[in-house]
Amino acid sequence: MTPVITAFERSPDGGRGLARDMRVRWALEEAGRPYDVRLVSFEAMKEPAHRALHPFGQIPTYQEGDLALFESGAIVFHIAQRHAGLLPGDANARARAITWMFAALNTVEPPIVEREQAPYAEGDKPWHQERLPILEGRIRVRLGELSDRLGDADWLDGAFSAGDLLMVMVLRRLEGMGILEEYPNLSAYVARGETRPAYKRAYDAQAAVFTAASTG
Amino acid sequence: MTPVITAFERSPDGGRGLARDMRVRWALEEAGRPYDVRLVSFEAMKEPAHRALHPFGQIPTYQEGDLALFESGAIVFHIAQRHAGLLPGDANARARAITWMFAALNTVEPPIVEREQAPYAEGDKPWHQERLPILEGRIRVRLGELSDRLGDADWLDGAFSAGDLLMVMVLRRLEGMGILEEYPNLSAYVARGETRPAYKRAYDAQAAVFTAASTG
Repeated sequence: MTPVITAFERSPDGGRGLARDMRVRWALEEAGRPYDVRLVSFEAMKEPAHRALHPFGQIPTYQEGDLALFESGAIVFHIAQRHAGLLPGDANARARAITWMFAALNTVEPPIVEREQAPYAEGDKPWHQERLPILEGRIRVRLGELSDRLGDADWLDGAFSAGDLLMVMVLRRLEGMGILEEYPNLSAYVARGETRPAYKRAYDAQAAVFTAASTG
Repeated sequence: MTPVITAFERSPDGGRGLARDMRVRWALEEAGRPYDVRLVSFEAMKEPAHRALHPFGQIPTYQEGDLALFESGAIVFHIAQRHAGLLPGDANARARAITWMFAALNTVEPPIVEREQAPYAEGDKPWHQERLPILEGRIRVRLGELSDRLGDADWLDGAFSAGDLLMVMVLRRLEGMGILEEYPNLSAYVARGETRPAYKRAYDAQAAVFTAASTG
């Protein structure tokens, strides 16, 4: 049974692989699983048919037979549980890899999303410029801690895992802000993720949607 | 082997059960597992010995023999995987319950934390009052969507699960803001969680730390 995921019909990032479907595509590629993609418009995402799949009106969703899931973290975990390549077999190592999945999404991502959204949410407010250093300071606290933990290791805990996949994707959201570059081991870590063949296949697949839309 | 968790030596919430150790205590109580608690001061949390357990210098941590975990979501998941009472046995229902765990932590909690932290982060700034309605508007979007999905059900997807445990705890962070009360089914949902015997045992255990500290 080939799963079907949803992705933006018109990606706000112009195909740079920052939308959350990229996480699911990458996980499926690491697992060597084929998948189909259904594109949804911003309008359709907020309608009852899509909200039946995703109560918060977002992408990605994941359908596989009778099963319907949402939340990129949960979908990546579902794929990682069922296929080799994303979680270690040893029980303790597996629990630690899952810990990094939650750390990526609940500790590292929120301040990055705040900074990313600030220009849209309040770019026209007089305080916007003054708040940016505050927002970036919060990101630096987390990056400094993450950098200290990673040290000169290739991945966060032994072999590449779904925890690294989510952490690399979360850190990629800093693209263009000039902050990640202050932490050379984290920059190298993200680059290491991006050179994985499965990442490249996933990236090319999501970029092709945008190329098709812009020329179609 | 009795696991050891960490909690605040002096809880910033004065024992109202809002610190993240409460999630882990509740999960352990639902699973019927005994546990030990090691209290840490704010200073000790930021020192190398604690950061070896928790790279981001926070609580809770979880130690069980050779295994050391951090991130409340990951710890709750670890407990739920190994003991009955927090995740359904059916594979699809289990995947959906895990989806709600991620939704609680990655979609519903971040705007609530932003609102909660605003007075500390920028309460002295001239824009603070003007930003509050923006922050609260973001929370209301998520609560409206969650309220629509919950409807008149007792729990988010069938029987009580670790997804409900985390969602109830995330919604409890709204205490005193007067926002949750606009969604009667969500208020009732939180109250339903709070009446579970396991919740009460966990709540009393964390409150006892504060009572001991304030009279000790």
